Amino acid sequence: MSITAKNICQNLDQVRLQSPLVHNITNYVVMNLTANALLAVGASPVMAHAREEVEDMVNIASALVINIGTLSTPWIHSMSKAARQAQKKGIPIIYDPVGAGATPFRTRTIRTLIQTVPAAIVRGNASEIMAIADDHSKTKGVDSAAAAENALASARWLNEKYGCVVCVSGATDYIVDKNGVAMIKNGHVLMPKVTGLGCTATALCAAFAAVNPDHFAATAAAMAVMGIVGEIAAEKAKGPASMQVEFLDALFNLTGEEIQQRLKIS
Amino acid sequence: MSITAKNICQNLDQVRLQSPLVHNITNYVVMNLTANALLAVGASPVMAHAREEVEDMVNIASALVINIGTLSTPWIHSMSKAARQAQKKGIPIIYDPVGAGATPFRTRTIRTLIQTVPAAIVRGNASEIMAIADDHSKTKGVDSAAAAENALASARWLNEKYGCVVCVSGATDYIVDKNGVAMIKNGHVLMPKVTGLGCTATALCAAFAAVNPDHFAATAAAMAVMGIVGEIAAEKAKGPASMQVEFLDALFNLTGEEIQQRLKIS
Amino acid sequence: MSITAKNICQNLDQVRLQSPLVHNITNYVVMNLTANALLAVGASPVMAHAREEVEDMVNIASALVINIGTLSTPWIHSMSKAARQAQKKGIPIIYDPVGAGATPFRTRTIRTLIQTVPAAIVRGNASEIMAIADDHSKTKGVDSAAAAENALASARWLNEKYGCVVCVSGATDYIVDKNGVAMIKNGHVLMPKVTGLGCTATALCAAFAAVNPDHFAATAAAMAVMGIVGEIAAEKAKGPASMQVEFLDALFNLTGEEIQQRLKIS
Repeated sequence: MSITAKNICQNLDQVRLQSPLVHNITNYVVMNLTANALLAVGASPVMAHAREEVEDMVNIASALVINIGTLSTPWIHSMSKAARQAQKKGIPIIYDPVGAGATPFRTRTIRTLIQTVPAAIVRGNASEIMAIADDHSKTKGVDSAAAAENALASARWLNEKYGCVVCVSGATDYIVDKNGVAMIKNGHVLMPKVTGLGCTATALCAAFAAVNPDHFAATAAAMAVMGIVGEIAAEKAKGPASMQVEFLDALFNLTGEEIQQRLKIS
Repeated sequence: MSITAKNICQNLDQVRLQSPLVHNITNYVVMNLTANALLAVGASPVMAHAREEVEDMVNIASALVINIGTLSTPWIHSMSKAARQAQKKGIPIIYDPVGAGATPFRTRTIRTLIQTVPAAIVRGNASEIMAIADDHSKTKGVDSAAAAENALASARWLNEKYGCVVCVSGATDYIVDKNGVAMIKNGHVLMPKVTGLGCTATALCAAFAAVNPDHFAATAAAMAVMGIVGEIAAEKAKGPASMQVEFLDALFNLTGEEIQQRLKIS
Repeated sequence: MSITAKNICQNLDQVRLQSPLVHNITNYVVMNLTANALLAVGASPVMAHAREEVEDMVNIASALVINIGTLSTPWIHSMSKAARQAQKKGIPIIYDPVGAGATPFRTRTIRTLIQTVPAAIVRGNASEIMAIADDHSKTKGVDSAAAAENALASARWLNEKYGCVVCVSGATDYIVDKNGVAMIKNGHVLMPKVTGLGCTATALCAAFAAVNPDHFAATAAAMAVMGIVGEIAAEKAKGPASMQVEFLDALFNLTGEEIQQRLKIS
């Protein structure tokens, strides 16, 4: 189950070649960034949340992202409907439990979604993953207070119970599956200073999973790309806003050589 | 009906001089970009979607944009209410059929809107325009799979049936009216890599139509400005995110000389 | 009650040290920018609007921003609920009356909110502040047509009636409290060309008030930081989009020296 730079490059090439349509039901804060990131990586984004159309949109999509930031009840109904259709159609569902643990409403919502329609991938920070698994963690808003390694037990529990690949992102990203754990040490401290880069990681996981049936490898590839692009961007950035601009430009221009030279996976 | 650089410059000058208030009922993904683009071109943007206030907002506005991305039923009611008030008041209505053809919900919604309250201008990509006219096109999400020229028959049909100026945007933009077709060959391949530049084009059409009763000329002017600014921006951009930054800066700084030197219209 | 550069630096240091969680119920246009600005200044942003969770989110927050742009009835209910909980908990509430005066719906909503749960701080442009105080002003959309000094009587009236600090922003920012008025003359003409910098100012007021019980001083500090950062950014910007990027970078990198050298307060 070792992931190599070559695997990652091939997965990225497939995203660029196939340009999979990724259907996002996501939060208002990150919609623009997520759409631009999906375009930059070579995928095709669509945002749609109306109960009248989510099933039709799923039917033309290759992956579904469900992100619970800026949640509300009408959106939960649409998330549930879209997830069931994605399950029926057999496309990967990727959950992003933004702010799980911050309010009972969010914790309850993500748990119900995962129980009702198991995901291909769940990607969150340590606090969020621990909250889903009821690890009595304390979440401060939507930012993670806890280090990623603290959530490993919760990630393993989630994987065993629901079969999904679980990614705990942080200074080191952990990708957990039944067969093992991949650790990615790429990334940069400026990344959490840009709102929505976590949500962007989730969207990239969806793009990579849309063209790669090995969802463990797809998640590792997406997270490695995030971290590598973050490093490249940080070398040019003067602060968090130029970081965001450099990030999307570097994602668009990412080469196989950059992946090979920078990858830190184990 | 030939449009000259001088016409375009005069239209732009009037936007900058009058700073028309453009009321947008648009999608979540592009709201920020649209507002910034309207400010950059010299107009004044407002976003409002509540049924309680859309008529009052239309009453102080000089143009109304209705964009069906991230659609939902409460918003459709407000769109309909705002459109009727705009018709009553006599300000131009500009429809953007984002994702028409992708789901029956979107196709049905835009058709009903156009039938109920005819637009001054409809601007979409080829797939969207063909979907409205029932040309059995296939749309892949919100990105156009078809070349703009394929939608010319649909554009002519829409113009004849509803009297609106129809703009099909693509590598070449076609602006169709009862008296003829203008073709604009400005633009750059990086533009579709920035989410929301199509929606931005629609917003600029609204700003130009707000100060120019010749809506064919206003649409051609707006699309020419989009393409020219795209070219200027692309010469400095390193990828899609710096492209967006350079685009708004270049739009803000656009000169008559740049329009004269770069315009490719026929 | 004179505010010095030292006061401002200390307030900024406390924001960076404590990283207060600021709960925003704000408009769709500015959510991303607001979140990024709060991160850049050192605070921790969260956006949540569902009636099911706003009270729980207030309970873990250190300040609450209520911004009435892109308003709708379900959001008003949540704003009211969140405000009452913030009052009960004793954290500062900051209102941003976006577009007050533009429609009766907005004017009525902000008046009811202020009457029901008095704010710590109200920050708006002259038209908005005059509209709340019924100064028969005319508002053109969400941009202020009136100069800030015209709204001083309205600001004083609001302060006397509800006890809140009132900030009227413009070329000169006026901060009005029972004991006097502070005037800040920092800033740059490019700032109103970036959508949402007014809303950003409101969010910064919340971050500063979250760690400073003297809400007059906190408001003055936040507005001074806005103006100073705007000046720094404008020296590097080529237009409104690079202005936004430079603004967030400069906010992130702001030093005590820059504050001391540039502050224009009286």
